[in-house]
Amino acid sequence: MDEAMPSNATGKVYLVGAGPGDPELLTVKAQNLLERADVVLHDDLVTPAILSLAGPQAKVVNVGKRCGAEGITQAQINARMIDSARRGLQVVRLKSGDPAIFGRLAEELDALEAVGVPFEVIPGITAGIAAAASLGASLTDRRKSSRVVIVTGHRAHANGVQKTLDWQALARADATFIIYMPGHDFGGLRSELLASGLPGEIPAAIVSRATTPDQRQQVTTLGELDKLPRMESPSILLIGWSLDRASQGSSAGDRSLTVDEVELLLSSI
Amino acid sequence: MDEAMPSNATGKVYLVGAGPGDPELLTVKAQNLLERADVVLHDDLVTPAILSLAGPQAKVVNVGKRCGAEGITQAQINARMIDSARRGLQVVRLKSGDPAIFGRLAEELDALEAVGVPFEVIPGITAGIAAAASLGASLTDRRKSSRVVIVTGHRAHANGVQKTLDWQALARADATFIIYMPGHDFGGLRSELLASGLPGEIPAAIVSRATTPDQRQQVTTLGELDKLPRMESPSILLIGWSLDRASQGSSAGDRSLTVDEVELLLSSI
Repeated sequence: MDEAMPSNATGKVYLVGAGPGDPELLTVKAQNLLERADVVLHDDLVTPAILSLAGPQAKVVNVGKRCGAEGITQAQINARMIDSARRGLQVVRLKSGDPAIFGRLAEELDALEAVGVPFEVIPGITAGIAAAASLGASLTDRRKSSRVVIVTGHRAHANGVQKTLDWQALARADATFIIYMPGHDFGGLRSELLASGLPGEIPAAIVSRATTPDQRQQVTTLGELDKLPRMESPSILLIGWSLDRASQGSSAGDRSLTVDEVELLLSSI
Repeated sequence: MDEAMPSNATGKVYLVGAGPGDPELLTVKAQNLLERADVVLHDDLVTPAILSLAGPQAKVVNVGKRCGAEGITQAQINARMIDSARRGLQVVRLKSGDPAIFGRLAEELDALEAVGVPFEVIPGITAGIAAAASLGASLTDRRKSSRVVIVTGHRAHANGVQKTLDWQALARADATFIIYMPGHDFGGLRSELLASGLPGEIPAAIVSRATTPDQRQQVTTLGELDKLPRMESPSILLIGWSLDRASQGSSAGDRSLTVDEVELLLSSI
């Protein structure tokens, strides 16, 4: 801890969503906070292009549990935020996507609030919403989909009993499912959703590394879900009728409105 | 339609999320597109502070159905996008929040694709996620909440039969509900959720005009939902155990870690 310079000013912790990967999908506020931060504590998934936006004064530390600081505990991350803020520093705790969606935000807020360190949460573009946008697909559609259900495959698979109950209750043809950390084995999920009565024709898509130069995607159907190739993490699995536009690919339509048709539509505006 | 200047360049339509209201919660990409746009077609809810970011060359048109262009049809909005793009113009179709969440994105994409006009979807911070952030609350919590369910009150109330079925299937104590366009009468929703077995102590919050200078919020419980005061639209209703931090208010905790405790936690990093 050598970023010292104790100050009388009150430090603050900004828990900031870094968005899905593309630096242009940062919010303006996140970009401004990064430029001014004294300390940036970031997760593994935050991309180098985003970290490069931190100002030259910033101490940038990877507190990710896989690559940056193997063996680091949540309590240690909390202590590091608290210590820096108490030294009067402006701390950006940078989380990929949106911090409130599967980002362990609650545990960090609890720690900050318990000791009276000021904080602010800055939302970010969550990966599932970015993945849909990158496919040119909507998540709701008045004609097809009236709700969005966000779950983690990781947790759904952690408890076999609960898993089955979950999908039976959730599976409805008018929902769009966004599944974070879906893993690689979709055979079980396919069986449960089909057993819940969903038709095999429902479109599904998996998007790997959404909005980065490494983005890859595959579009399929629920019935063919088990045949998806293995995609690199992080990935997002989307299932629902609202994705049927994605399944049409990016080919443009083959019919143009005539000049008369456009004029007719515009004439009464 | 006097923005003319027919060009050989191909125009394009960018369907852009304007975020919840705070201009700083625009993405960097949205801000850049606004600065360069030839035409900005926006909904009623996009704030003046955001519209002021459009460049001086831009023709800014409110195509909102309530305030801007009463009686305008979806087909007319579609035609206007298509016509402008065919004149070689860069069109920003600006929607509040995220365009894929209850933004009628699918219908506009269908229209553009049917006639072969190039388009791109730029995600935005959706109002429900912004509302949670403004309360300093998470939407998931490993200890309490494993899923997020996004619905509209508007649609849920449109069909009495489906409404009851919906909530009985969806209502689970480990879900966080984000209800867009919740209306003002929460007595029915309260009864259904309680009848589905959810405890009355589950925290609930309503946030009106999230992230704008006019933001107001009220924190309560499911059992007291019917006693919420009437809040101005647009508002978001949030229900779930993950919101219990919001219900503690913004008062800072009264216990500080000792220097020894912080040192102990930091020593092994």
